Amino acid sequence: MSPIETSSTPRPAAVAGFVESPAREASPGGAGAAPLYERVGDRILAGIRDGTLVPGQRIPSVRRASVLFDVSVTTVLEAYRRLEDRGVLEARPQSGYYVRRAPDAPPAPARTATNESAAELTVSDLVLRVIRDWRSPGLVANFGAATPSEALLPASRLDRLLGRAFRRTPPMSLGYDSPAGLEALRVQVARRALDVGMNLAPDEIVTTCGAQNALRLCLEAVTRPGDTVAIETPTYFGLLEVLESLHLRALEVATFPEEGICLDALEEAMRRHRLAACVLCPTFGNPLGHSMPVEKRAKLAELLERLGVPLVEDDVYGDIAFDAQRPPPVKAFDASGNVLLCSSFSKTLAPGLRVGWTAPGRHQRAVEGLKFNSMLAVPTPTQMAVAMLLEEGGYERHLRRLRRACAEQVARTSDAVSRALPAGTRVSRPRGGCVLWVELPAQYDALRLYERARASGIAIAPGPIFSATGRYQSCFRLSCASPWTPVLERALHRLGALVAEQVQ
Amino acid sequence: MSPIETSSTPRPAAVAGFVESPAREASPGGAGAAPLYERVGDRILAGIRDGTLVPGQRIPSVRRASVLFDVSVTTVLEAYRRLEDRGVLEARPQSGYYVRRAPDAPPAPARTATNESAAELTVSDLVLRVIRDWRSPGLVANFGAATPSEALLPASRLDRLLGRAFRRTPPMSLGYDSPAGLEALRVQVARRALDVGMNLAPDEIVTTCGAQNALRLCLEAVTRPGDTVAIETPTYFGLLEVLESLHLRALEVATFPEEGICLDALEEAMRRHRLAACVLCPTFGNPLGHSMPVEKRAKLAELLERLGVPLVEDDVYGDIAFDAQRPPPVKAFDASGNVLLCSSFSKTLAPGLRVGWTAPGRHQRAVEGLKFNSMLAVPTPTQMAVAMLLEEGGYERHLRRLRRACAEQVARTSDAVSRALPAGTRVSRPRGGCVLWVELPAQYDALRLYERARASGIAIAPGPIFSATGRYQSCFRLSCASPWTPVLERALHRLGALVAEQVQ
Repeated sequence: MSPIETSSTPRPAAVAGFVESPAREASPGGAGAAPLYERVGDRILAGIRDGTLVPGQRIPSVRRASVLFDVSVTTVLEAYRRLEDRGVLEARPQSGYYVRRAPDAPPAPARTATNESAAELTVSDLVLRVIRDWRSPGLVANFGAATPSEALLPASRLDRLLGRAFRRTPPMSLGYDSPAGLEALRVQVARRALDVGMNLAPDEIVTTCGAQNALRLCLEAVTRPGDTVAIETPTYFGLLEVLESLHLRALEVATFPEEGICLDALEEAMRRHRLAACVLCPTFGNPLGHSMPVEKRAKLAELLERLGVPLVEDDVYGDIAFDAQRPPPVKAFDASGNVLLCSSFSKTLAPGLRVGWTAPGRHQRAVEGLKFNSMLAVPTPTQMAVAMLLEEGGYERHLRRLRRACAEQVARTSDAVSRALPAGTRVSRPRGGCVLWVELPAQYDALRLYERARASGIAIAPGPIFSATGRYQSCFRLSCASPWTPVLERALHRLGALVAEQVQ
Repeated sequence: MSPIETSSTPRPAAVAGFVESPAREASPGGAGAAPLYERVGDRILAGIRDGTLVPGQRIPSVRRASVLFDVSVTTVLEAYRRLEDRGVLEARPQSGYYVRRAPDAPPAPARTATNESAAELTVSDLVLRVIRDWRSPGLVANFGAATPSEALLPASRLDRLLGRAFRRTPPMSLGYDSPAGLEALRVQVARRALDVGMNLAPDEIVTTCGAQNALRLCLEAVTRPGDTVAIETPTYFGLLEVLESLHLRALEVATFPEEGICLDALEEAMRRHRLAACVLCPTFGNPLGHSMPVEKRAKLAELLERLGVPLVEDDVYGDIAFDAQRPPPVKAFDASGNVLLCSSFSKTLAPGLRVGWTAPGRHQRAVEGLKFNSMLAVPTPTQMAVAMLLEEGGYERHLRRLRRACAEQVARTSDAVSRALPAGTRVSRPRGGCVLWVELPAQYDALRLYERARASGIAIAPGPIFSATGRYQSCFRLSCASPWTPVLERALHRLGALVAEQVQ
């Protein structure tokens, strides 16, 4: 076994330093069985397949690899170029080679289409039932909720800080927090914004009861009942719930599974419909895991500003980039306050604290008013705990571990899915976040699969809950939020068997 | 000075045991200056004026008073009967004599009137400005927010429990709470419901982010944009904000300042308008402090059920009864699930925790759905802290202290107001809660007073924010949430001077 293959529970340390091992001798077929560059390539591929190397990760430099594998620089270059041609690696100028996607990965889903007309929404009941199922005690494998599992979150540290937050003077439990939210937290959020290329002042930020609450308040601020809102498709079911409860109509706009919404289709939609708002998750959108290229972000901000359509930007997965660097939010290109950015610490620190925030641009006053009238304020101590954690430092280090873990879990799940599911299955190639979108051939029924899987103790998210119009009957979302185990692998094989049953 | 008058900072102990002091000798006018029963009566009146005896409090029994004041039982009986005739005391069968209201109290406000038509709402901006002013750092006296001051809340105990809540396993910060809310808290709420004459099961309860959030979710569940909702008048400004944000129309219905909404007027309104809901605060309503008599509660429940109009019942002040026993909520008379009861622990434990709840009857599913889509869940640790405090016991003892303190503060404020404000001023006679409603003669302008008071560092709540149609231009609300001090007394005199300025 190669040093890479032996690392059955891969850790960052195993990735950072490849153990030296000459490619000449390690080849199972003996010397001369395959060209040297191929054997080097195989070593990289094996690392990707077993999750040691994950999409977005930098692989050893050409010079370093030549030492590690005891081959010439030319041989390494040849190996890397061939993997680049296959789409497995990408070269980044002045930086090196990075893993782009797994080899032999199933094809990505195709671009989705724009609906002719905006739809009223009636997804609530199915969503609530699915959510309830995800919480049932008998689950063997939970591919449901898209939140990193407990093992990946700094629970004990947060709890210690919460304990300290409550020993503060004056007591955190007294008095209503201001409509804008706890200043200590807003200061920390503003500081972090700088790191992702945004200038936000603390007084441009409003804290919320999670990102869901931020989305809801922002949408409520920019729409009236009966209005039409443009969305990606497929999109986060919780957004559809919000649209439904605000009596809004949803226009599903063509979306690229790796780049997000199609700008041409969006512009066309804006010409044909009177849009009150556009809601997008450009950075590691849920469920596709897509990431809009930076130049499209600037164009999107300009387009929406020009046509006077506010953008509600969901950035809740933005911190879980598989690449070392996440792209700046669309908000970073917004000079006029037309973008209402929404995020939270639910996916990176603690869902149970319900600490989120929004930078609502020129709609701030309306958002603060709506927050005030729907709950007066959000709880103080939970905000304080997060502010203290960010103040203390170490959040970036935690994020690096979390990103790496999510990238690995996504890679392993994708690999297992491609082996377990029938030919013709397409799987998303997320650039961040912790979910996979699976598109079965059209004859399969995801809702039936959902029911059967549930009976086997396996929770998934059926495709139709991601659409305002009942699309994605053959799709489902897999959460890759838990560390990889044989139990999960067996559950995916069981899922494959349940799929196979449908055509017997 | 009499023993009562010397207690300048009255404490429960001073009330429970009157120090013996013969009425014959204590009379300042010397023996024979006034009949004995009058001197006994004066002693009681002095106790009420200085806040030692507060409305709702039981005074010494006739037998005990005869010993205390060294007079005959007949003399005490005569004194008590005369005070009963003046409306100061009330006799309760098999229980004794209780303070009903302060002597020489200004007249109570008159019944308010029903509006001809339902109004669209546009109060938000004024309310938000007022709320912001209440938080300004330079305040000398804050008669603004209607929440018991820090001194009256068990902050240190709660903080200790919160610290412990966070050392629990599994950590409270992980995972989303269920849409219904933390079970441990719902169990405690259900147990307390029994004490106020209601049968509620834990699974009939949904926890919320404070009572404001409960009101909002319940109203959203039973209405559609454009619907008309019947309300008391004057009413809590936060309710008007909710109606505005839900695009509802408000119909202000005639209200008795001591009994709450007029049932005949409500029935008439239901005949003339298509009402989607009725929102009332029958128990110590804000700002009037009224309490609907029990028999009217039963009738109200029956009336609304018969006409198919759901009742959203705000019970947030229900635990702050000046009497020993609070009346049961209207929900206690609701057999069909037509009443959506809303409450919280913000007024009795800690506003900053934002822990509230609702028992939404047959609308529970809709309320849970709306809660889910507006915030997924409420924070877990804050709910757990309140559940632990209720579990540990001592909440009833805390409530007794809080009730007594609020009753005393209301009595003292009322007394100071009646001395500081011009003749013709009317003042509410609350039976619970912590606010007073003041009605100046019609030539005075409460908004102008509000601005002038603010410039003097005195926060009040101007009357028009309590109306959907700009009524109550000469009224204002005084919060009696802080322990009485000479600073507050001076502030009320300053307020009186500012009022007087308006007619110069």
